[in-house]
Amino acid sequence: MEINPLVYVIPVAGIIGLLFALVLTRSILRKDTGTPEMKEIGDAIREGAMAYLARQYKTIAVISIILGLLIAVAIEPRPYVGIAFLVGAACSVLSGYIGMIVAVNANIRTASAARRDLNEAMKISFRGGAVSGVAVVTLSLIGVATVFFVYAIFVFPDATVANPIPGVDYSIQQALLAAVGYAFGASFAALFAQLGGGIYTKAADVGADLVGKVEAGIPEDSPKNPAVIADLVGDNVGDCAGRGADLFESTAAENIGAMILGFAVYALTGEIGFVFFPLVARALGLLAGLVGIMVVRLKNEDENPMKALNRGYYVTAIIAASLFGFAAYELLGEGWPYFFAAGILGIILSIVIVYITQYYTAGEYRPVREIAEASETGPATNIITGFSVALETTAAPVIAIALTLLGAYALGQAAAPAGSESFVTFTYGLYGTAAATMGMLATAAFVLAEDTFGPITDNAGGIVEMSHQPEDVRKRTDKLDAIGNTTKALTKGYAMGSAALAAYLLFGAYFDKVLEIVVRTDPSLTITDVFKVDIAQPPVFVGALIGGMLVFLFASLAIRAVSKAAQDMIKEVRRQFKENPNILAGDDKPDYARCVDISTRGALKAMILPGILPVVVPVALGLLMRYAYPDQWQISYQAVGALLMVGTITGVLMALTLNNGGGAWDNAKKYIEAKGLKKSAVHAAAVVGDTVGDPFKDTAGPSLHVLVKLLATITLVFAALFVVAPPLP
Amino acid sequence: MEINPLVYVIPVAGIIGLLFALVLTRSILRKDTGTPEMKEIGDAIREGAMAYLARQYKTIAVISIILGLLIAVAIEPRPYVGIAFLVGAACSVLSGYIGMIVAVNANIRTASAARRDLNEAMKISFRGGAVSGVAVVTLSLIGVATVFFVYAIFVFPDATVANPIPGVDYSIQQALLAAVGYAFGASFAALFAQLGGGIYTKAADVGADLVGKVEAGIPEDSPKNPAVIADLVGDNVGDCAGRGADLFESTAAENIGAMILGFAVYALTGEIGFVFFPLVARALGLLAGLVGIMVVRLKNEDENPMKALNRGYYVTAIIAASLFGFAAYELLGEGWPYFFAAGILGIILSIVIVYITQYYTAGEYRPVREIAEASETGPATNIITGFSVALETTAAPVIAIALTLLGAYALGQAAAPAGSESFVTFTYGLYGTAAATMGMLATAAFVLAEDTFGPITDNAGGIVEMSHQPEDVRKRTDKLDAIGNTTKALTKGYAMGSAALAAYLLFGAYFDKVLEIVVRTDPSLTITDVFKVDIAQPPVFVGALIGGMLVFLFASLAIRAVSKAAQDMIKEVRRQFKENPNILAGDDKPDYARCVDISTRGALKAMILPGILPVVVPVALGLLMRYAYPDQWQISYQAVGALLMVGTITGVLMALTLNNGGGAWDNAKKYIEAKGLKKSAVHAAAVVGDTVGDPFKDTAGPSLHVLVKLLATITLVFAALFVVAPPLP
Repeated sequence: MEINPLVYVIPVAGIIGLLFALVLTRSILRKDTGTPEMKEIGDAIREGAMAYLARQYKTIAVISIILGLLIAVAIEPRPYVGIAFLVGAACSVLSGYIGMIVAVNANIRTASAARRDLNEAMKISFRGGAVSGVAVVTLSLIGVATVFFVYAIFVFPDATVANPIPGVDYSIQQALLAAVGYAFGASFAALFAQLGGGIYTKAADVGADLVGKVEAGIPEDSPKNPAVIADLVGDNVGDCAGRGADLFESTAAENIGAMILGFAVYALTGEIGFVFFPLVARALGLLAGLVGIMVVRLKNEDENPMKALNRGYYVTAIIAASLFGFAAYELLGEGWPYFFAAGILGIILSIVIVYITQYYTAGEYRPVREIAEASETGPATNIITGFSVALETTAAPVIAIALTLLGAYALGQAAAPAGSESFVTFTYGLYGTAAATMGMLATAAFVLAEDTFGPITDNAGGIVEMSHQPEDVRKRTDKLDAIGNTTKALTKGYAMGSAALAAYLLFGAYFDKVLEIVVRTDPSLTITDVFKVDIAQPPVFVGALIGGMLVFLFASLAIRAVSKAAQDMIKEVRRQFKENPNILAGDDKPDYARCVDISTRGALKAMILPGILPVVVPVALGLLMRYAYPDQWQISYQAVGALLMVGTITGVLMALTLNNGGGAWDNAKKYIEAKGLKKSAVHAAAVVGDTVGDPFKDTAGPSLHVLVKLLATITLVFAALFVVAPPLP
Repeated sequence: MEINPLVYVIPVAGIIGLLFALVLTRSILRKDTGTPEMKEIGDAIREGAMAYLARQYKTIAVISIILGLLIAVAIEPRPYVGIAFLVGAACSVLSGYIGMIVAVNANIRTASAARRDLNEAMKISFRGGAVSGVAVVTLSLIGVATVFFVYAIFVFPDATVANPIPGVDYSIQQALLAAVGYAFGASFAALFAQLGGGIYTKAADVGADLVGKVEAGIPEDSPKNPAVIADLVGDNVGDCAGRGADLFESTAAENIGAMILGFAVYALTGEIGFVFFPLVARALGLLAGLVGIMVVRLKNEDENPMKALNRGYYVTAIIAASLFGFAAYELLGEGWPYFFAAGILGIILSIVIVYITQYYTAGEYRPVREIAEASETGPATNIITGFSVALETTAAPVIAIALTLLGAYALGQAAAPAGSESFVTFTYGLYGTAAATMGMLATAAFVLAEDTFGPITDNAGGIVEMSHQPEDVRKRTDKLDAIGNTTKALTKGYAMGSAALAAYLLFGAYFDKVLEIVVRTDPSLTITDVFKVDIAQPPVFVGALIGGMLVFLFASLAIRAVSKAAQDMIKEVRRQFKENPNILAGDDKPDYARCVDISTRGALKAMILPGILPVVVPVALGLLMRYAYPDQWQISYQAVGALLMVGTITGVLMALTLNNGGGAWDNAKKYIEAKGLKKSAVHAAAVVGDTVGDPFKDTAGPSLHVLVKLLATITLVFAALFVVAPPLP
């Protein structure tokens, strides 16, 4: 088998990525850590974050090891899926950890640099974010590639199947189907990381805001607030570690899914390039991201930092698109221009979604102003209007996603050789949606860098405030913080858009797995025979119903966890203020550690149930349907497929609602503040909305991104448990 | 063709129902109308309600006539679908009107009776509700039967189709497919009635509460509140007229849908009884409901009125179940015990859902207490916890519905003759779900009576308060009002459960219609060839995505409309209080009329867009898919089917969330009041939640019930526009 030399770009890009991250980290660590007071605060944040992560990772490790062993024992090819699962979970946790460790060192250096000039502060914070972005994407690339090549070359070198197509190398298929465990492990760990981190940060944030800002009237990040350290720690464990794990699992799952679809095309055409293309495209996208990251700098002290970020993004997008085209030309046979076009569609979608998100969450447009206006008549109308806006924000992205999906599918079909049979055209069509997803994800490293930039600047602002720096230093960090809020909202839009677009590719992988099982019994079956989810069948419809319900229930549990922990936090802060009046007078230091402890315990306890639920429900449904309809082999896998698909649809809708609604509430409050109405009744009403939006946008919403992908990898890994063998032909 | 004499029960029950409603109405009107002061207030409410309804119906009439004419011209069999549409719309509006006219007469008489004893007040208010329940169910029965028989006997007596099955009377099929217009007209008008009424009532309620109760500190229903009359009018136009139209269209649509499935069984077996069974079961259920209504009375002044209502309900359920079994025995051939069992499943489901709803919305259980507790830390945690509870409430009902659906389907399949081909078994299975729905709806008259009882007692309480009656009179109406709140919540659960269960029957009708079109080209097709919604096909998946999104967008528009009108109301009430301090002093009367006008204008303007949206989107999607995939005849109808099914799933989930969440917030506030914490900060926080829940539970939620059925009837009526003819065999 002839392999295109372009494949060597995968390890090369991996090494460059790691070196880049290392150099960036060193350049950050060389910066000064400011005054002793700043250092003390920075240390407290770092220690709090590390202590929490250590406990969280211990919990995740215990659960993951149990599940990993179960998989290793129960799921074929034993024990390789289980091993891949454990490696995936470990890598996911590791990339979150790297992002966070850089963030808790960059925050204080950003704060210190802000004493001098905006450009330097901006550079440190963005480079801190960049380490996270580059590390996550690089680790995901190296991890997937390593598991795949090791399995293909050393574990299944002579793999064969019951009725092989001559000339097809089945070691690739077996390696991919075992590597699925890696994606599942990554998603599984990421769900806990995102849930735990999200609950932690919002419990602290809500508690700090409601008692500190609203009841006691002290400013944001005031050292008098007992919950302030917990709040700053939360930014790191939620936004850095959580989001890092989230995007790690996204890229891993989507990469493996796309390669499985690539194998399907390869089995039809003999073109092995389709299998490697996703990895190569990711590697080239990573290199494009590195260039984009280097480009980001302020032209002068007065330039809007957002402009500098946008410049970097467009540079990344243009280079990534060109390299994507080159890779398609090299690897995807004669139909490459169609897949190139599909990739461009994906990149366009990411830009469109960013604009839509901006429209719904930025202060200059109708939605946020409407919420601000509704605050004039109190918190109730603020909430009602905000919720209405939140629901509305689903419409435009869904239409954009739908058009991209149909376009990419049509382009893929058009790439099929003329006169192909319908199952060939269909396979090409699916690969078209995979190409669009790869296009969208090409800029992932840069986007993630922008995202992690947010919590770093947020923390820097906190350190500046707590260490009593002069007004103009705080103004600089505020400027960066405002940008960080915007980029965070945009990243969530991006993550959601890519999850929706990737859905199809993951569905495709699921049905390829089902096909792989059923052809053992009936070799005449093709992908079009099994790629069906007929929700008109009552049991399949019930699967769809359960899928939708699962999303609602999951969101309920995530939101409730924040509410419970936040209530404990509020009571603790009230208690400290009441029992020691010296705290508010500024004479005594509050007991920060107790608040850190409340967030920690709340998060660790509450993340278990919502984390287990999405694993148990699909498997239980599949087994139930398998035994309820043993004679109808198409029922059980379709019912699970329906759970997956309608769960994805509902998950996308719910996540859009929660993310954008939360963002809009947040900025409505900021809009009112910008009008100088702080401390008015209108502002108080807007603070209620902002607080309600907190668990929506930072706990439940981002966890739903992970949930959607987790459902896909679960069904893929456990398919063998519930797929019923078809009757002998 | 031999017709079972049991069919004559249809006109007989219709006549008895009408007479019963008439007698009840007279018995109510004979009661005294209390003091002149009470009479004045009652007149103001009645006039306000009538004035609003007149304007609302004018708007509905204009839109309906335009659409009706379009249908009459464009949709086959011309112009009969259009005519049926107009008749259906008119009947729907009429039944809402009857319910309301009785309610606005019963309210004052209930208030007057409450001066004497609880039992009499209870009897008047419940009988007022009963008139509405009986009238709605009777009119629906008579309307459907009349349109069907007139069309079958006079319009299509010699109907035939391209490839008829010998011995099948196709006049029945053509009559049913034309009668579908009746169901569509009823749903269409009901959507506007429910939206308009819902927006009206909640704009007034929110406005009255937020300024009156919270800001000015005057009690509920105080005559000093400028919005109080609008609020009392709202109860009538929203809860009576809106809900009446809602249940009218439910029973009409589900009856016709079930008869279409009945025709499918008849075409296979020659058993005409399957066609008439839905009408007969409805007629017998109506008679059972009449008995149940007569049973409701208090044993003594101290008995909990809820107990009396429950007695009536169980009497209704037992009689209805027995008669249902008798009808099944007479009409449904040898498999009748299976259909009887399916009907019992439906009745059990209605009871289970009522208990679940009670658990989630009543003060004695965990969810409401959790919200009450969260209020201690302010409005934000109240909202967060309430929203979490709202999302959680979807789980248990969905599981109950799923089990019922699968059970009824399996029972129906078991009823098929042994050794039947798969499409025969499938058709029987679908009829099983129809039987379950018929079982659930058998108690509709009684349930609706309970529902309308709510706003009557609410109004009575208002009249008592405004006419300065002594404390113990108010206590009596408060007691009834509390029950009314519970029954309203239960009815919403019932309406939602029946909508979900009926979904399958309506899907079945849609595919029967598709089959009827495509067999003209390819007579070899059977129902199992077309009864497919394969969401694994990208265009079909996009239909599903759009269906889910439509629900979110619709809910957004409905909620926003309330917010906008409520903000205007709040500003107006504030203005009146500010410009004329005599109002709060009790020396001047406020300007009630201006508030009535604000609600009216807000409702009429804002109901148009959400009312039109669900008609335009499915038709547009169907046409788009038809022209985008002209060579794949299965795509366009399946894409619309996916919109319908996933729209239904999402609609059910969203409606459960909004209805139960709103109910839980409401009762959390009441729970806090019962603990004597009125006017505390905790109570203020709970009032915010209650207010947020208002548009959820009384505007968006109930409108979603109608939306779900409207989607089904739209797709059914417009199917011919987008179904692509299959290739010639």
